[in-house]
Amino acid sequence: MTASTTETYALVNDGSSTTALGFKAGALAAGIKASGRPDLGIWASDVPCVAVATFTQNAFAAAPVIVSRERLEASPRAQAVVFNAGNANACNAEQGMRDAREMAQLAAAKLGISPDLVLVASTGIIGVPMPMDIVRAGMSRVDLRPEGGHAAAQAIMTTDTRQKDCAVSVRIGGRDVHIGAMAKGVGMIHPNMATMLAFVGTDATLAPDFARTALKRAVDRTFNMVSVDGDTSTNDSCFLLANGLSGAPELTGGSPDAERFVAALEAVCTDLARKMASDGEGATKLLQVDVTGAASESDARRAARAVASSSLLKAALHGEDPNWGRVFMAVGNSGARVDANRAALWIGSVQVARDGLTTGFEKAEASAQMHGDEVSMRVDLGLGSASARAWGCDLTEAYVVENSAYST
Amino acid sequence: MTASTTETYALVNDGSSTTALGFKAGALAAGIKASGRPDLGIWASDVPCVAVATFTQNAFAAAPVIVSRERLEASPRAQAVVFNAGNANACNAEQGMRDAREMAQLAAAKLGISPDLVLVASTGIIGVPMPMDIVRAGMSRVDLRPEGGHAAAQAIMTTDTRQKDCAVSVRIGGRDVHIGAMAKGVGMIHPNMATMLAFVGTDATLAPDFARTALKRAVDRTFNMVSVDGDTSTNDSCFLLANGLSGAPELTGGSPDAERFVAALEAVCTDLARKMASDGEGATKLLQVDVTGAASESDARRAARAVASSSLLKAALHGEDPNWGRVFMAVGNSGARVDANRAALWIGSVQVARDGLTTGFEKAEASAQMHGDEVSMRVDLGLGSASARAWGCDLTEAYVVENSAYST
Repeated sequence: MTASTTETYALVNDGSSTTALGFKAGALAAGIKASGRPDLGIWASDVPCVAVATFTQNAFAAAPVIVSRERLEASPRAQAVVFNAGNANACNAEQGMRDAREMAQLAAAKLGISPDLVLVASTGIIGVPMPMDIVRAGMSRVDLRPEGGHAAAQAIMTTDTRQKDCAVSVRIGGRDVHIGAMAKGVGMIHPNMATMLAFVGTDATLAPDFARTALKRAVDRTFNMVSVDGDTSTNDSCFLLANGLSGAPELTGGSPDAERFVAALEAVCTDLARKMASDGEGATKLLQVDVTGAASESDARRAARAVASSSLLKAALHGEDPNWGRVFMAVGNSGARVDANRAALWIGSVQVARDGLTTGFEKAEASAQMHGDEVSMRVDLGLGSASARAWGCDLTEAYVVENSAYST
Repeated sequence: MTASTTETYALVNDGSSTTALGFKAGALAAGIKASGRPDLGIWASDVPCVAVATFTQNAFAAAPVIVSRERLEASPRAQAVVFNAGNANACNAEQGMRDAREMAQLAAAKLGISPDLVLVASTGIIGVPMPMDIVRAGMSRVDLRPEGGHAAAQAIMTTDTRQKDCAVSVRIGGRDVHIGAMAKGVGMIHPNMATMLAFVGTDATLAPDFARTALKRAVDRTFNMVSVDGDTSTNDSCFLLANGLSGAPELTGGSPDAERFVAALEAVCTDLARKMASDGEGATKLLQVDVTGAASESDARRAARAVASSSLLKAALHGEDPNWGRVFMAVGNSGARVDANRAALWIGSVQVARDGLTTGFEKAEASAQMHGDEVSMRVDLGLGSASARAWGCDLTEAYVVENSAYST
């Protein structure tokens, strides 16, 4: 993440989900993952928070998603999230629901709070019952600390190769407000949402309606614009908890500093979204797709996501092959309004198509724009002024290898 | 293809697109493909035909698609299709349109018919102008013969490893009617349609409206249910030409033999669709997905296609990994109505899930159902009586290798 040029927010060095005042986390290797890596933890605030969330659209929503959604629908308040990796607790029917509720109870007992204030997030294999004996034993050993953010970020990793967390500070009503977050997700990442877990904790004071609107907007422009493999998981959850401990005045949609907070929140989510795309399973390159000149924002979003999602294009990206026709093919499939004689395309700084046909570019020059671990493409549809950005990654042999032997 | 058990139609041995009376074809290696393989040809009837088609939904439709669509919208009549592989003539703006029309003119001159009776089909790389000097020189050497069907099927191959053609005969009004067809397509194959070309020639006598309805139904249930990589090409075209030379009475929607013809046409298209899926780029396994018990046919279609399209599931298939949660995950993303506590799943003959959760099946036994080059899965949604079938293939390292270095 680079600091905002307009200085509305500042990057916090070594930031994490516990950077905001009053947040703490603990995690350990309970033994859910066969690898012996960290897989269980609790992320909590010292005091109850305004809490909002976005969840997977998948019809087979996992038990922790159902439990968390029910709690937040009943009341936009929470104080903690209990989480695990290695088992998604999805497709486990009623037993899954009982296990998810028990996980919340175990965490609540440890924290001395009501189970209704605990949300649940799980990620891992689908269709295998949660090993509750392991969870119970592990939970008793979780040790929450204000400096526990990075350890928590490690414990929600599945096939992630790097932990994903960050934080920013932003001035609200004369106070320094912090927004810290962690996320995981590298496969089954696709609009809308991903096998993606993201926990965002802030010491700002947020009105529930404003928190909901701000989170939805940030998720729509960041996590929902990331595609790794076109699949959407049963477990995606993005939580925003606001505890007000900064002492800053409550933000509502009409507050003078509302936009500043929204921009800071989006910056945090953008950073995590980029980290997810570049850590896509088997990925070697981050792809950033901008669509400009669209007739509407929804067209721009659709077109950008279609390009970032195309298996053919992602394979070409891997080979650093400026096979630009595949970009137009993907845009043409997106449902966005296009005029085949107006579209233009840039790969990095090289314009490869204009008015719907090749510029006669030098292939080697365009290919050179695809070297390195970050590649940008821009499609201008020449129809309007709407734009959108999406992120993806290349499709590699390693993705196939990784996903052809996951559960066995 | 296996012969129909109700004996409504019979498989023709060694059938092709020229099996029906009065059809002929010619093809050669003109030099459009760098490989020196066959890449140009003409498929024609001795007399003008009732002609209908379905085309790509991609907004960047290629020039040959635009030209063919215009002709058939003006009049449902045609006598020939000129075709090439190695160049899609897509994203070539006005020059592409001129080249597509000239290809039709060259074929018409050779056949001594009006250019309006010639349709055009191209497949290959996008965004490179058609090498018309090569096309002109090649066209003068095309030699059409009644036994030219297989050669034509070879000349529309791109990354296909096997030619795809077949024919059936069916009794209509006391006459033997033939339906012969060829197709190509192994990548960018996805609902709706594919980088897919299919030419179907019959000596039946078809009313245009009936021909249109019959083709749409067959395509919807076959080619539109095949997914290789989730991308839809700029060039997909499926033509049906009926020349009436069998002497059978004209079929309309109300004819007693109408359903028999429709079933035969669907059988031809099913055979080609299965050949496409099993020849998917890099594929080693054909996946047949049945969805039963759906609340509606559109739900069943959506769910079946989602399963056949999931990159994660396709990778698991490659590894013969009975990771059944990925099947439900894909169904859950499809938009089809589901009840997580009612869904059941079979891999081959092994039931792996019931009432939304695992049956506790033996992993080795389920994996054994995934050996071999044809794997079937069935999802029962437990909600109604609608069903649908889709075809796909596994996702392999070879797909990535093949598609990461195509144009360079």
